[in-house]
Amino acid sequence: MSSNSFGKILTVTTFGESHGPAIGCVVDGCPPGIVIAAEDFAHDLQRRATGKSRHTSQRHEADEVEILSGVYQGKTTGTPIGLLIRNTDARSKDYDKIVEQFRPGHADYTYWQKYGIRDPRGGGRSSARETTMRVAAGVIAKKWLGEKYGIVVRGHVAQIADLRPRAFDWDAVEDNPFFWPDAGQVAELEQFLDALRKSGDSVGARLTVVADNVPPGWGEPIYGKLDGELAAAMMSINAVKGVEIGAGFASVAQKGSEHRDLMTADGFRSNHAGGILGGISSGQAITCSVAFKPTSSLRLPGETLDTEGRAVEVITTGRHDPCVGLRATPICEAMMALVLMDQALRHRAQCGDVGEVFPRIPGGVA
Amino acid sequence: MSSNSFGKILTVTTFGESHGPAIGCVVDGCPPGIVIAAEDFAHDLQRRATGKSRHTSQRHEADEVEILSGVYQGKTTGTPIGLLIRNTDARSKDYDKIVEQFRPGHADYTYWQKYGIRDPRGGGRSSARETTMRVAAGVIAKKWLGEKYGIVVRGHVAQIADLRPRAFDWDAVEDNPFFWPDAGQVAELEQFLDALRKSGDSVGARLTVVADNVPPGWGEPIYGKLDGELAAAMMSINAVKGVEIGAGFASVAQKGSEHRDLMTADGFRSNHAGGILGGISSGQAITCSVAFKPTSSLRLPGETLDTEGRAVEVITTGRHDPCVGLRATPICEAMMALVLMDQALRHRAQCGDVGEVFPRIPGGVA
Amino acid sequence: MSSNSFGKILTVTTFGESHGPAIGCVVDGCPPGIVIAAEDFAHDLQRRATGKSRHTSQRHEADEVEILSGVYQGKTTGTPIGLLIRNTDARSKDYDKIVEQFRPGHADYTYWQKYGIRDPRGGGRSSARETTMRVAAGVIAKKWLGEKYGIVVRGHVAQIADLRPRAFDWDAVEDNPFFWPDAGQVAELEQFLDALRKSGDSVGARLTVVADNVPPGWGEPIYGKLDGELAAAMMSINAVKGVEIGAGFASVAQKGSEHRDLMTADGFRSNHAGGILGGISSGQAITCSVAFKPTSSLRLPGETLDTEGRAVEVITTGRHDPCVGLRATPICEAMMALVLMDQALRHRAQCGDVGEVFPRIPGGVA
Amino acid sequence: MSSNSFGKILTVTTFGESHGPAIGCVVDGCPPGIVIAAEDFAHDLQRRATGKSRHTSQRHEADEVEILSGVYQGKTTGTPIGLLIRNTDARSKDYDKIVEQFRPGHADYTYWQKYGIRDPRGGGRSSARETTMRVAAGVIAKKWLGEKYGIVVRGHVAQIADLRPRAFDWDAVEDNPFFWPDAGQVAELEQFLDALRKSGDSVGARLTVVADNVPPGWGEPIYGKLDGELAAAMMSINAVKGVEIGAGFASVAQKGSEHRDLMTADGFRSNHAGGILGGISSGQAITCSVAFKPTSSLRLPGETLDTEGRAVEVITTGRHDPCVGLRATPICEAMMALVLMDQALRHRAQCGDVGEVFPRIPGGVA
Repeated sequence: MSSNSFGKILTVTTFGESHGPAIGCVVDGCPPGIVIAAEDFAHDLQRRATGKSRHTSQRHEADEVEILSGVYQGKTTGTPIGLLIRNTDARSKDYDKIVEQFRPGHADYTYWQKYGIRDPRGGGRSSARETTMRVAAGVIAKKWLGEKYGIVVRGHVAQIADLRPRAFDWDAVEDNPFFWPDAGQVAELEQFLDALRKSGDSVGARLTVVADNVPPGWGEPIYGKLDGELAAAMMSINAVKGVEIGAGFASVAQKGSEHRDLMTADGFRSNHAGGILGGISSGQAITCSVAFKPTSSLRLPGETLDTEGRAVEVITTGRHDPCVGLRATPICEAMMALVLMDQALRHRAQCGDVGEVFPRIPGGVA
Repeated sequence: MSSNSFGKILTVTTFGESHGPAIGCVVDGCPPGIVIAAEDFAHDLQRRATGKSRHTSQRHEADEVEILSGVYQGKTTGTPIGLLIRNTDARSKDYDKIVEQFRPGHADYTYWQKYGIRDPRGGGRSSARETTMRVAAGVIAKKWLGEKYGIVVRGHVAQIADLRPRAFDWDAVEDNPFFWPDAGQVAELEQFLDALRKSGDSVGARLTVVADNVPPGWGEPIYGKLDGELAAAMMSINAVKGVEIGAGFASVAQKGSEHRDLMTADGFRSNHAGGILGGISSGQAITCSVAFKPTSSLRLPGETLDTEGRAVEVITTGRHDPCVGLRATPICEAMMALVLMDQALRHRAQCGDVGEVFPRIPGGVA
Repeated sequence: MSSNSFGKILTVTTFGESHGPAIGCVVDGCPPGIVIAAEDFAHDLQRRATGKSRHTSQRHEADEVEILSGVYQGKTTGTPIGLLIRNTDARSKDYDKIVEQFRPGHADYTYWQKYGIRDPRGGGRSSARETTMRVAAGVIAKKWLGEKYGIVVRGHVAQIADLRPRAFDWDAVEDNPFFWPDAGQVAELEQFLDALRKSGDSVGARLTVVADNVPPGWGEPIYGKLDGELAAAMMSINAVKGVEIGAGFASVAQKGSEHRDLMTADGFRSNHAGGILGGISSGQAITCSVAFKPTSSLRLPGETLDTEGRAVEVITTGRHDPCVGLRATPICEAMMALVLMDQALRHRAQCGDVGEVFPRIPGGVA
Repeated sequence: MSSNSFGKILTVTTFGESHGPAIGCVVDGCPPGIVIAAEDFAHDLQRRATGKSRHTSQRHEADEVEILSGVYQGKTTGTPIGLLIRNTDARSKDYDKIVEQFRPGHADYTYWQKYGIRDPRGGGRSSARETTMRVAAGVIAKKWLGEKYGIVVRGHVAQIADLRPRAFDWDAVEDNPFFWPDAGQVAELEQFLDALRKSGDSVGARLTVVADNVPPGWGEPIYGKLDGELAAAMMSINAVKGVEIGAGFASVAQKGSEHRDLMTADGFRSNHAGGILGGISSGQAITCSVAFKPTSSLRLPGETLDTEGRAVEVITTGRHDPCVGLRATPICEAMMALVLMDQALRHRAQCGDVGEVFPRIPGGVA
């Protein structure tokens, strides 16, 4: 199977480079009859887009989606959906200096070692521009999950540097450029990021994504577990260095009597499992946290090598995000939605209408 | 593709339940000519086995591997390798009481919701007994990686509850029942685990796995990234709740100037990336950390439901590990070895002899 | 994906050599709740078995299936079903002479060129012994298709050498050792095959397999078409050299006005399409014909090379079938059943309950 | 895996409808460093194109390929190659009448039964327009096979109605609009097809495709056999009803002493196997024959149903080929080239440099 494809029944194949003529994807295996139009992609693409605030890269891409196939009279037909976005604001000359240099923390050196050739313009295929198509595909998945099951997939930034939210409100998340759930901290974050940007440095971020209303029974043991596929999906996003399900690494220091989520007829007593047991959804909220490393493209000089093996000093002057995690919320949501929809279809394949098994425990925490 | 299969070129398919007649696996896509015998599996299977110390479950399985196919005159032939282990010490009556109860923190409820039927004996398919076959398959991968590339894959426990090693010595790891790299702490750990066992409770653990001497160029962007597949592999292990590559979640609080690993002709200045950039190996050590939750099977009573939806109190009296992470080191090693071998074969498929590209930076930290 | 695996949702992975300790398979993705017992495999395995008449190889294998996993209290659980058959009548010394010779028409030379090593005993992995496991897996598929949809998959021999049935009766097929639909010709066939066997030569056969009551809508365009997967399935059987759907090669000389199956409310006017249009089932009978080459193992001497490249004369003295197609009917049925079941599950994945679309044309020929 | 994808290592995913804005494909897993330009696609696309003679459909498509990704400075980079062709001569109003009718012999009824919705314009996704992208992808495969191994993949029409070539000359094939290897018969064919076209009827065709210089050792037993994958590839082409490897159905009436290809140090004595033994290439020419049914779109009226289930008379007035096989030669070549390249990469994955094993028998017939 193509390594640029994702999913087993619902398969998304992406292509395109940061500074090539276009990026695109093919969404295959989609159920027929889903109402979808080019406009539907705009909202999440704008949430992901650069240039929306001073805290992200100033590249301005229109990100207009053209539906090339798979939709007839406004509905999906079951045939592959081709989506295309033309690149309109690529400034390849920003990369002239680094054509023969390996930027530290980037994939320049490894692509070159793997393939013996690389497209250096904007990072080529390794650019986060690819994630645009994930967001587009994710829109279809979110729509299907929402309409068919009432599932809501949403995310927020949960940590920037050492800063963590002191309050939590889903409504606040979309009201600031940081996807931050604590409105009271926004000014502090702006100050922090302004200073960071001026310093030429960058910082990491932690994101949390949650899916509510997922029915119990989704996920395929052993190597197709819901958590295994979420981990792969999240780790495949540029700059991700860690993934947690539920309590994650905090589980290490927990006692079993604390971690195990006791079960009552009114619901589970807690959700340390993050909604997944044995790789299968339990009906509780699916929760996943993701660590983004700091952007590697810095205005601060650093040691590196050129393609001849000579030591050189590198400064990356392109338009970059000081905190790449800031735009990653819709990407993480898209990946979770795509995993869930694929698992939903797989579950239906093997188990059909099984799954509505008595007793079903309420999803919330009792 | 089978959800009980793992890997693209080197594909491992496992089957079997904890208390069924046998567990087994099929290793397909293995290169011909590898020297392998039934005895080769013993070492790692013993490292994983229960009953070796008082700190693990007292189930005593012989874990004798029968090679059913794929090996002729002591060498692999390129055809599928069938491996079988008979279960010899299953005590299904331990599970009589919980046939109609859902153990909290276990997959009982979710398997039942998914399939409408479940094998309750020892957890059935969801038991960690399945990991025996991963370790067996991993032995072949370790052998091939070692003989062909000099790659060494090894792991250790890095945290139990709040305890962390104060010193580090690979030689110490195999000399104590905790895979602990600090010999001076072993007495303390024994005391801690004795007390824990007596209390009837359990605790989590963090493991770290490292692969040295991996050549640059392995890993397939975008959805077949080396780190993405490591994450999926580790998260597919029973009880795992988190995976980190390199600096992992610590990246969140790092500055870019700190995180990015500068490059010199003598090697990288650091290895926060964990040996992977853009999903492709850099030639540095591949490092991965894994969070294991505390065992959910406790002698301490807990609330749950029975299959009729009635509230009941559950006590699990089977033979269980107070810290399931303690036996997981060879499992994590096996999964890393299997991922690496599969990626090596995939790299050779697409790129052939490319990869020995000048300049190659030494793998160590300069 | 494993090249020893077959199917996308229902995946069958086989392993084992002709003269190894055992052959086996793993059936993954099977819906839960199917009633299955070891005895269920006996009927079709006996239909495929050698030694039942003087017209087949005299190897006598018990072919007793052990269910290793995936079945609990007589029902499938949704977890992988491991099936094992021990080899009991392997006579490897028959092959001593040909260890260093390449038998013409066999895979000896090509396995050796591919892998640089081969198991010569009974053809090793390339032996038709592997098809035993296909038949076993097919039993599960036939059962599911029959119970859930009333689908009947059955086959017969349609040509041996130049002999074709002069009459057709499904009831006759199972009453003679040739799976021949014309009872009146059985004596003639016996005479023909007796003479053939004495001559030391062999002959080919054509088989036809038919599935009745397949609902419309199964099959996945473009590269997962029902006919495409049937072709792959049949061509993967040892000794098969050709596959036809419906009118097959006769279509070449047909006019469009003759070939196209006109549609009426009472049914199609004909079934040249073999029940498949655009890769999707039409509700008519799925019909497939398969060409088996004559057995290559002959007592007649022939030119070949040894592993040193020297010209030698080869005579194969093992126990062989003079017409390998004679035992292939249950194998072809099994492959068709496995393809259909896999496609049924895939259809359910993508399209759910769609498919019962008005008007549905009756499957029979009007 | 996507059912609109083909191949395991070299994966081609196509999308697009006959009358949609564009058709396209993504070629993934391609080795880096292959020199390729948009112009390279023109030759084979023209060989496949309609409107080149009066004997094919008069739709005139420019078939201009835009390379969207995966190529940098004229060379493949190892990242996915996106190819796009805009549809420019779609006349959807030809299909107005049949929007609510099911054309006999077409996929109209089956798509509708499967998905509950269909794009009726030009057959939508089920149109042979999709094969344009196969030809484009095949160009890359042919180039790689030719440059790296000297492999030549070429085909010809071997039968139209009852007409068969009386002489054979590869050079003649490209000099007439019928891909016919006997120049002396071209006038006869023109006459036949002129009469056929005037009658409003259509006819079938047989094609033969041959690959010379394929090294021994390609193909993966058991379910990834070279012949199995060729069969699937060919059967996935629109209108194909049969596939033969080597002697094909003629094997049925052959004796084993005739069929088996004896081996000498100078080469095999014959090639009834079609260059494949046990699913693996033998070094002989790979030969495959394919049956195309007659075009189902006829000006002759026929019985059918409309979407309400009422009996109606259908006449298809669009621009159609009287013998669809006439344009299929480059499509069959492309599919064989794609199968071979994928198998070459898979062989290299598992077996690396094994394969150059003594003795290697010359490929020609001795």
